[in-house]
Amino acid sequence: MVITRELLLRTQGNCDIQDITPQVEKALQGSGLETGIVTVFCPGSTGGLTTIEYESGVVADLQGILDEIAPPDRDYRHHLRWKDDNGHSHLRSALIGPSLTVPFVEGRLTLGNWQQIVFLDFDTSARSRRLVLQILGE
Amino acid sequence: MVITRELLLRTQGNCDIQDITPQVEKALQGSGLETGIVTVFCPGSTGGLTTIEYESGVVADLQGILDEIAPPDRDYRHHLRWKDDNGHSHLRSALIGPSLTVPFVEGRLTLGNWQQIVFLDFDTSARSRRLVLQILGE
Amino acid sequence: MVITRELLLRTQGNCDIQDITPQVEKALQGSGLETGIVTVFCPGSTGGLTTIEYESGVVADLQGILDEIAPPDRDYRHHLRWKDDNGHSHLRSALIGPSLTVPFVEGRLTLGNWQQIVFLDFDTSARSRRLVLQILGE
Repeated sequence: MVITRELLLRTQGNCDIQDITPQVEKALQGSGLETGIVTVFCPGSTGGLTTIEYESGVVADLQGILDEIAPPDRDYRHHLRWKDDNGHSHLRSALIGPSLTVPFVEGRLTLGNWQQIVFLDFDTSARSRRLVLQILGE
Repeated sequence: MVITRELLLRTQGNCDIQDITPQVEKALQGSGLETGIVTVFCPGSTGGLTTIEYESGVVADLQGILDEIAPPDRDYRHHLRWKDDNGHSHLRSALIGPSLTVPFVEGRLTLGNWQQIVFLDFDTSARSRRLVLQILGE
Repeated sequence: MVITRELLLRTQGNCDIQDITPQVEKALQGSGLETGIVTVFCPGSTGGLTTIEYESGVVADLQGILDEIAPPDRDYRHHLRWKDDNGHSHLRSALIGPSLTVPFVEGRLTLGNWQQIVFLDFDTSARSRRLVLQILGE
């Protein structure tokens, strides 16, 4: 069986990192499915999904390292071409990836105790985001 | 239900980035499935899959940043061991990843308006590539 | 159908990279499923999953580049906050990702000839790890 859910978020942009585990758990429980996988997907090319231990230290460290890998203040080709300012946002999204698939068993996500699903908004301003949750299982 | 499709590509190698969204959409429409997920997978250790806004600026920016993260002109251990020249290709593939899973609803991929599925060929020469599309749904 | 399996590993930590392809293949064969996808997932925020050509050169190159991207010897905020020493481990896990989905066809993983599924243990000491294999197919 396949159950589709949407998840609506307000973000601050600029590498805002949000813990969405409670919302994913809630959608999973509402699906009635016991065993399977949930794919969390970001429609859009300036967001990303992964897991971290969601505490302010790791959040700051991750923001810091992404500033090193894809600094905001470069003359990206994307800027030159579109008079845009979010070239780094596109690169971070391509590297982290827009999709995350997590197994569930007995109706529960198989996350570790200190592991949360996070959405990263790399864009350069506050945004409303709609994520797709596709739940497959039985 | 599970539907398997193959996607054949000619690439130029050297971080050739190709938009494969039309081929994935076409395979999805041919499957007859309405709701589910499609996993796009690269058999081989020198390719990668992700999504970007497919325009020449972002493409050049992504190629540029991958040149920084894993430069082509280093004495990689892989070269010393195998007299090979594609050590950087292997690293990029490991970082970007060989697999991408995208939900579909009502027979359509849930991509954003400016988001395309891309295959990146990190190898050092032009190649024929065969990607696997595994479509699960109902 | 959904089949859940667990995979138990002993690792050395410190970017120990292990080829788990034989164990995943064995679990797949035991499932009796012919066509579908397997999601390999690491519960925990200091491990990662990807594919590489598993030979000592690529393994050393990947360890080397991860030392550059997220060096072990920095004053990460995670350390300051928790008196911990594995800030770099968390960052590597977030970048590589805790999840990998691989299609299978006729009961075999669709990996390339020189492509293996690897688990990377980024934590700073030897550990026992439990990975989840979620096999969906028919």
